[in-house]
Amino acid sequence: MEYIKVKGADTLVEKSFYVIKNPQDYIGKWSSLFNNNNPICIEIGMGRGDFILDMAKNNPKVNYIGIEINSSQMSMAIERQNSLKLNNVRFINMDALYLDKVFKKEIDTIYLTFPEPWPKPHNEKNRLTRTSYLKIYDKIFKKNKHIILKTDNKNYFAYSLMSLSNYWYIFDYVSLDLHHDEKRINISLTNYEKQYIKENRPIYYLDAKFED
Amino acid sequence: MEYIKVKGADTLVEKSFYVIKNPQDYIGKWSSLFNNNNPICIEIGMGRGDFILDMAKNNPKVNYIGIEINSSQMSMAIERQNSLKLNNVRFINMDALYLDKVFKKEIDTIYLTFPEPWPKPHNEKNRLTRTSYLKIYDKIFKKNKHIILKTDNKNYFAYSLMSLSNYWYIFDYVSLDLHHDEKRINISLTNYEKQYIKENRPIYYLDAKFED
Repeated sequence: MEYIKVKGADTLVEKSFYVIKNPQDYIGKWSSLFNNNNPICIEIGMGRGDFILDMAKNNPKVNYIGIEINSSQMSMAIERQNSLKLNNVRFINMDALYLDKVFKKEIDTIYLTFPEPWPKPHNEKNRLTRTSYLKIYDKIFKKNKHIILKTDNKNYFAYSLMSLSNYWYIFDYVSLDLHHDEKRINISLTNYEKQYIKENRPIYYLDAKFED
Repeated sequence: MEYIKVKGADTLVEKSFYVIKNPQDYIGKWSSLFNNNNPICIEIGMGRGDFILDMAKNNPKVNYIGIEINSSQMSMAIERQNSLKLNNVRFINMDALYLDKVFKKEIDTIYLTFPEPWPKPHNEKNRLTRTSYLKIYDKIFKKNKHIILKTDNKNYFAYSLMSLSNYWYIFDYVSLDLHHDEKRINISLTNYEKQYIKENRPIYYLDAKFED
């Protein structure tokens, strides 16, 4: 996906209190940063932060860390957080490939919200639900594994069901049309999702666990 | 679903060579009936038999047994088989609840083709992918478990993904739109399915395994 380039984004990211500059220094001790023992959840590819900021506002007893590689996207999240000033949110400006350099057995839930589907076979290596990524996630989960995925991409969803199932994840909940489901899942929306709902596009949802 | 009542269906079912009258007598020895050691697959709810007869025609080295409780539906399958005379097909006129009274560690694959979704919660007990049914199937599989499901019902598909995943099945293949998938699955069509394809309704497909 191509994103708008925001002027001054790099500086904003660099100077923001909410962006952790040397995240590897906190490996194994993120609780100390939040100064509490609440669960820590991460969103990979938080984009403009709509989802994570809303989750953090609704769940003050949970800590959230948003991972985003694109500075322009992150700058928009920073600006919203500058006015919200939620103390249970931080951001990291990096690639998801380095997650295990930054976290160690301390993450409760990984949120994958509308990840890039990388539909072409030669790009499969980039898919966030690929086995190689699941192996990275293994290193950062506190005890039980817990991934929540939302996507509007049918084939990516089917791919993820196969990939996670083959990695022994158990599906606690699956929806092929989240916003028209009888069961109401209490989970925040991303900015894309708000648009997709207007367009009546089905949202696929997966809550997958592996309990040790 | 309401089916047309076919006149003379009961007699046809009763007299057909292809319908096994005392299936419990063959428990553990269905191979002897077919007079070979080819794999034995069953379709639960074969209806008019379009799927199973086409599968049998295309795979002469596999034996197929169609299970159907409705005599009128079965009578149509019998009539087609009377002209096809495939020697790798038999039918059983019974409820799937009795599968383990009739088979014992001898089934290779169970095909669930457009099963009744029983959407109301108080009817959940009738769903063929419910845990109680999975337990029955356990008793009839030869060694590895192998279920192939096709349905046009979104919620039933999501339910089945959850149910099978929680029963430790692994998903070899999932499609949320079988007939528009890049990967071509070589599997026969049911009569409903032919209609659904015309209506451009997506068909959900699951190939689930559990290897001992």
